[in-house]
Amino acid sequence: MSNQGTSAVAHEDEVFYLDDLHVGQRFTSGRLEVDADQIRAFARQFDPQPFHLDEETARHTLFGGLAASGWHTAALTMRLQVCGGLPIAGGVVGRRGEIEWPRPTRPGDELRVESEVVAIEPSKSHPERGRVTIRGETKNQRDEIVQIATVTLVVPRRA
Amino acid sequence: MSNQGTSAVAHEDEVFYLDDLHVGQRFTSGRLEVDADQIRAFARQFDPQPFHLDEETARHTLFGGLAASGWHTAALTMRLQVCGGLPIAGGVVGRRGEIEWPRPTRPGDELRVESEVVAIEPSKSHPERGRVTIRGETKNQRDEIVQIATVTLVVPRRA
Repeated sequence: MSNQGTSAVAHEDEVFYLDDLHVGQRFTSGRLEVDADQIRAFARQFDPQPFHLDEETARHTLFGGLAASGWHTAALTMRLQVCGGLPIAGGVVGRRGEIEWPRPTRPGDELRVESEVVAIEPSKSHPERGRVTIRGETKNQRDEIVQIATVTLVVPRRA
Repeated sequence: MSNQGTSAVAHEDEVFYLDDLHVGQRFTSGRLEVDADQIRAFARQFDPQPFHLDEETARHTLFGGLAASGWHTAALTMRLQVCGGLPIAGGVVGRRGEIEWPRPTRPGDELRVESEVVAIEPSKSHPERGRVTIRGETKNQRDEIVQIATVTLVVPRRA
């Protein structure tokens, strides 16, 4: 694989099957900027709490200012992985995972995701596929980690 | 507490501090229906994969039909918990968690969340607060579980 030991944005039409992956392999997504309007819009729909809705109110909470919902950061991370950041054959299909938000995403942050293969397990009952565990670090423009998510995906083998 | 040993929707203005909670305590949210337009709209924005975008294409994938993104189910679960389903003082503020999607949310599903306190840990360094772990089961109208999320929250003590 061309990106062994290095981070690379995959070519648009290059997808990786189970057989193409190895532990330690890394992928880097594109970048996505988030503004205050997007943070508030997501919050109104899914997480209507004061620290996600209003800058002035947020200053007096433990966030100390407007902060994106953690689920907004998770959704943006998914977008970055699906749109070239994690080019898995058959798509990015997770069944379970662990998630952690060391700090919030803030208005004006530019996010990217660095994904690393941490485990590969061919299926015994379904020889045509297997499970691949990916650890994704979502970072802002200051290289601060806003999310760490370790997700197990279903990945097909080459025919 | 009035809802010891039973599930209850909390009164609108009743909020629970660390001191008010006990392991085994349960809360039930209201209900929220999800339609195909909402599933596609979320997917276009955050998880643009064929099985979340188009019914016909989705039929030929492992989902066998249009399915909501797992992150959409997570966001809807948050909405249900924030809007009365988990009335924690200071809001629902998570730092980390585990998440599992045993089956997808489908168009027309009506979701609700049953949340249970599974651990309470007063902080040694911050006597004014502590950590509470909540296990939330998100169920559809057929009582099938679409998400299990165990999230650790920061919860204030009574002054």
